Amino acid sequence: MSYNLLKGKKGIIFGALDEKSIAWKVAMRAHEEGAEFVLTNAPIAMRMGEINKLAEACNAQVIPADATSVEDLENLFTKAQEILGGKIDFVLHSIGSSPNIRKGKSYGDLNYDWFLKTLDISAISFHKVMHVAEKQNAMNEWGSIVALSYIAAQRVFPDYTDMSHAKAVLESIARNYGYRLGKLNKVRVNTVSQSPTKTTAGTGVGGFDAFYDYADKMSPLGNASAESCADYCITLFSDLTRMVTMQNLMHDGGFSAMGISEDVVEMINKQS
Amino acid sequence: MSYNLLKGKKGIIFGALDEKSIAWKVAMRAHEEGAEFVLTNAPIAMRMGEINKLAEACNAQVIPADATSVEDLENLFTKAQEILGGKIDFVLHSIGSSPNIRKGKSYGDLNYDWFLKTLDISAISFHKVMHVAEKQNAMNEWGSIVALSYIAAQRVFPDYTDMSHAKAVLESIARNYGYRLGKLNKVRVNTVSQSPTKTTAGTGVGGFDAFYDYADKMSPLGNASAESCADYCITLFSDLTRMVTMQNLMHDGGFSAMGISEDVVEMINKQS
Amino acid sequence: MSYNLLKGKKGIIFGALDEKSIAWKVAMRAHEEGAEFVLTNAPIAMRMGEINKLAEACNAQVIPADATSVEDLENLFTKAQEILGGKIDFVLHSIGSSPNIRKGKSYGDLNYDWFLKTLDISAISFHKVMHVAEKQNAMNEWGSIVALSYIAAQRVFPDYTDMSHAKAVLESIARNYGYRLGKLNKVRVNTVSQSPTKTTAGTGVGGFDAFYDYADKMSPLGNASAESCADYCITLFSDLTRMVTMQNLMHDGGFSAMGISEDVVEMINKQS
Amino acid sequence: MSYNLLKGKKGIIFGALDEKSIAWKVAMRAHEEGAEFVLTNAPIAMRMGEINKLAEACNAQVIPADATSVEDLENLFTKAQEILGGKIDFVLHSIGSSPNIRKGKSYGDLNYDWFLKTLDISAISFHKVMHVAEKQNAMNEWGSIVALSYIAAQRVFPDYTDMSHAKAVLESIARNYGYRLGKLNKVRVNTVSQSPTKTTAGTGVGGFDAFYDYADKMSPLGNASAESCADYCITLFSDLTRMVTMQNLMHDGGFSAMGISEDVVEMINKQS
Repeated sequence: MSYNLLKGKKGIIFGALDEKSIAWKVAMRAHEEGAEFVLTNAPIAMRMGEINKLAEACNAQVIPADATSVEDLENLFTKAQEILGGKIDFVLHSIGSSPNIRKGKSYGDLNYDWFLKTLDISAISFHKVMHVAEKQNAMNEWGSIVALSYIAAQRVFPDYTDMSHAKAVLESIARNYGYRLGKLNKVRVNTVSQSPTKTTAGTGVGGFDAFYDYADKMSPLGNASAESCADYCITLFSDLTRMVTMQNLMHDGGFSAMGISEDVVEMINKQS
Repeated sequence: MSYNLLKGKKGIIFGALDEKSIAWKVAMRAHEEGAEFVLTNAPIAMRMGEINKLAEACNAQVIPADATSVEDLENLFTKAQEILGGKIDFVLHSIGSSPNIRKGKSYGDLNYDWFLKTLDISAISFHKVMHVAEKQNAMNEWGSIVALSYIAAQRVFPDYTDMSHAKAVLESIARNYGYRLGKLNKVRVNTVSQSPTKTTAGTGVGGFDAFYDYADKMSPLGNASAESCADYCITLFSDLTRMVTMQNLMHDGGFSAMGISEDVVEMINKQS
Repeated sequence: MSYNLLKGKKGIIFGALDEKSIAWKVAMRAHEEGAEFVLTNAPIAMRMGEINKLAEACNAQVIPADATSVEDLENLFTKAQEILGGKIDFVLHSIGSSPNIRKGKSYGDLNYDWFLKTLDISAISFHKVMHVAEKQNAMNEWGSIVALSYIAAQRVFPDYTDMSHAKAVLESIARNYGYRLGKLNKVRVNTVSQSPTKTTAGTGVGGFDAFYDYADKMSPLGNASAESCADYCITLFSDLTRMVTMQNLMHDGGFSAMGISEDVVEMINKQS
Repeated sequence: MSYNLLKGKKGIIFGALDEKSIAWKVAMRAHEEGAEFVLTNAPIAMRMGEINKLAEACNAQVIPADATSVEDLENLFTKAQEILGGKIDFVLHSIGSSPNIRKGKSYGDLNYDWFLKTLDISAISFHKVMHVAEKQNAMNEWGSIVALSYIAAQRVFPDYTDMSHAKAVLESIARNYGYRLGKLNKVRVNTVSQSPTKTTAGTGVGGFDAFYDYADKMSPLGNASAESCADYCITLFSDLTRMVTMQNLMHDGGFSAMGISEDVVEMINKQS
C-alpha cells in the first residue's frame, strides 16, 4: 500500500545488508512511497550482502562508503546529489558493529581499541554524516535524519556491552546535531529505538533469543518487526512530522513503558 | 495536501472549540485524509464554540457529551458507532480545564475541590473514554488513541499549577490503559506533548506570552503550531505507527531536549 | 550506629502503622540520629496500628491527623511546633491508600469516586501538608521534605491500578511545590522511589509476591529493605544534601536501570 | 563539622587539580569524615596543580596515574591497597578533558581524533578504573563508586560539544558496570550530575558565564557549589546509601526539573 508520502523526496539510506535488514525494509517502503534515493554501505558489508538486488528493486544506485571516513562520506554526498539531481531530504543511518561483541568479549573484559572502534563505527559515523551534510549544505529545508537505536542506551542489557555506550552517544549526537541543523536548515534529527529485531546483526548479540522472547512477553503489542519499523521511519521522513526533533522515539510495542506484564508474572509463578 | 492516510477510518474527536483549537485542526486534516468521524464537546463548550461550522466543513455529526460522565460517554460511543456504521479506529482527547487557573489561584493557594475537578475533567475523563470503549468493545484492532499533553507534566512551569498534575495523570493513564487495550485489542494509546499553542484555552494560562516566547527562543525549530500538531496526530492515527504505544511524544520543535540555546544566551548577555 | 546526622533537627513523620512500616524505621533511625519529632497518622490507622509503642521508643508525641483535612494539618503543624519548640526541619510523607486496590477492582473497572479518593489520600495530601507549612511559615531554612513513591509512576505494573496515578501526582507535586518552597524558604522537596517492600500496605497489592520476586531477580543488589530506605531518608534530611531538590530518587538496588538481568534470562531459558 | 560518616573507610580520589576542584573539596570532607585515601591525577595535571598541598592537609599519599592507561591504574590500585592496608571502599572519578573544547572547535567542526580522546579521557577511563578494580578484586563489599557528570548528557548545551557525549558514555558506563559490580561485590556505582561549577576546568568551556547565570536564575536553590557537591558525595560513600546504584543523581538546586522560573520570565519581560 502506498500513500505517496515521500513523493519527490530524495534520500540516502545507510546499512542495508540483506533482506532482513531494517534499512532494506525502509528502502523498499521509501520506494513505494515515491522517494528516490541512493543506497550505501561499507565496501566489506557490500561484498557479503545482496545490496544490488535491493538497488534493482528500488531503481536506486549504490555508492560504497565507509561511514567512518569523512572522505568517503564527502564523495557519497556529492555523488548522491548528482545522481538525484538536488539536495537531500532524508537520511537513514542504520549502522552498528562492535568488534567486542563479535569476538565474544564480556563487559568486564572489553578490548579498549575495539571499544573506540565500536563508538566510531556505530555512533561517531552519525556525526560525520551530518558534518559532511552541513559542509556541503546538502540538506533541503525541513529535511529529516533518522538513526536506529536500542533501549540499551537507557537500561542495562548485559550482553549488549559496548554497543550500549555507542547507542548512548548516537542519541546524544542526534540531540546535539539536531539543534545545530535545526537552526541552520530546519532539518530534524531523531533516533528510533527499535525492539530487538531478528536481523543478521541483531541475532549476533549473545543471548539474543532470551531477550527477544522476554521483550515480546513484556510488550503488550509484542516486539515490533522490521517492516513496522520501516513504516514508522516513513512517517518520520514525511512532511507530517516536521516539528519532531532531537527525540529518541521508542518503537517497541510498549516495552519501554512496562514495569511488569501479566505474561511475565505468569512465567514467574510457574517457576515457584 | 492529502495522502489518504485515514481512508476508511472512523473516529471520535473530543475538544474542538473554535478555529484555533488543535482538535479543530485535527478534524480538518482527518477529513482531508479520508476519515469519517463524529465531533464531541461538553454542552457548555458547544454553546460558546463554533463546532457546527466545523461539522459542516467535515461532513461530521456532533454528539454533545460531558467527558466526565460515563453515561454521556456511553451514549457517545453507541451513537458514534451507529452513525459511522462500525467500530472506532481513532480517538483524539483534547480536553483540559482548570478552575484554579481560570480563577487565578496561585499554586500555593489551590482550591482543593477545584483541584479534583481539574483532574477529573482533564485526565480521568481519558480513563473514562477508554473504559467505555472497552466495555462496548468499540475499538477496532490496531486502533489508535491520542491525548494532548504538555511538558509541565515533567518540568515546573509555575503558572500551570494543578494542570501540570492533570497532565501527569493523563500520561500515566495513557501508559496503563495502553497496556490494557494493547493486550485486549492491539489498540495503541499515546500522548502528544505539544509546544505552547495560541489556542483559546492555552492563552488563558497566566504568563502565557512569556513562556511562549521563551519556548520559541529555546527550540531550534521554534514552537510547533496547531497545524503541525494536527499533521503529527494524523501519522499516529495511520497504519504506519502501529507499534508505537504508551509513549509521551514530544512535538515541540526540540524544546524538551534543550539545556540552553544561543538565542537564550544572547538574551542573558544583553541583560548583563 | 549513630552519626548524629540529625542532631537538633525537628520533624514530623506521617504514616507509621506498625513495625514493618518504612515510616516506623525512619522514626527509629531519626531518633538514633538525634532528631526530635512528632508522629502522626490518620485516626483510623492509629487504632489498627501500634504507633504508641513507637512513640515511646522514640520519646515522641503522637498527634492524630487525617492528611486529607487541611484543618487537621493546621492543628498538627501548630501543635508540632509547640511541642518541639520551634520550626520544622524535616517531614516524611509515607501515606498511600487505594480503595480500588483494597476492593480488588481491576484497572478497567475502577470506581471513579474511589479513584479521586486514592488521589486525595495518597497525593493531594502531600500538597496540603506543604500548603499548611507555607501558610504557617513552619519550615526552617534548608529544611527537607520527602515523600515515598514507587516506579509505577513511570512504568506499568498492572496490579497497581490507580495508585500508579497517585504516585505520578505525588512526584509532580514534589517538583512543583519544591520550586515554590525552594524560592520561599530554601526548603527542598523530593520523592524516594522505593523497591517493593513487605509492609502491611505493600503486600496488600494483588500479585505482590510475583513482582517482589521479579524485582529482586532483576536488581543487582536485590530489593532495598525498609531499613535501608530509612537510612537513605536520613541522608536526605541531613545537611549534606541541601542542593538536591525536585527529584525522584530511585532507591531500588538498581531495578530502574535494568533492561534484563542474567537471573531473568536464566528463568526464561529454563522455561523454554 | 564531622559526623564520622566515613570512619575506617579507604578510598581513591581522582582529579583534584587545585582548591577550586570538586575532587579537592571531596578529599577535604572525606578526611574530616574519617576516611583514609590516596590522591591521584595525571602526571601533567599534577605539575600544574597543587595536589601536594592537599595531600598534606589530608595526610594522604599521591600516586600519579594516567587514567587512560590500564597499566597506570593497575599500579595505582596495587599501591593504594598497600598504603591503605586493605581493599577500597570508595572511588571518586572527577576527570574530564576535551581537546576540542580547549582548542575552541565548534560542534560542527570537531576534530575526530580529539573526539575519541575526549571519550577516552573523560568516560572510558571510568570503565578502566572499574575493570582494574574488578581484576584485582580490589573493592570491599558495599563499596561505592561515584563519577561526576553534567546535564549536557541529557540536554543540549551548544558549547559543551563532544564533552556532552563523553558524559553520556560516562553515565552509561555507571549503569552497565554498576550492574556487574553489584552482582560481583555488592558495589554500587552512580554519577552525580552537578550544577555548572566555577572550577578551573568548568570555566574553560565557552560561554560558561552565561549558562552559569542562566542555571542560577532557573534553579530555585541557585547553583550547587563545589562544597555542597562534596557533602553529597560523602553521603554516597557512606553506609546510608547502600541500595542506590546505577543512577544519575542530579545535584543542581532543582535546575533539571524546571521548565521556566519566575526569574527567567522576568528577564524575558524586561526584554520585550
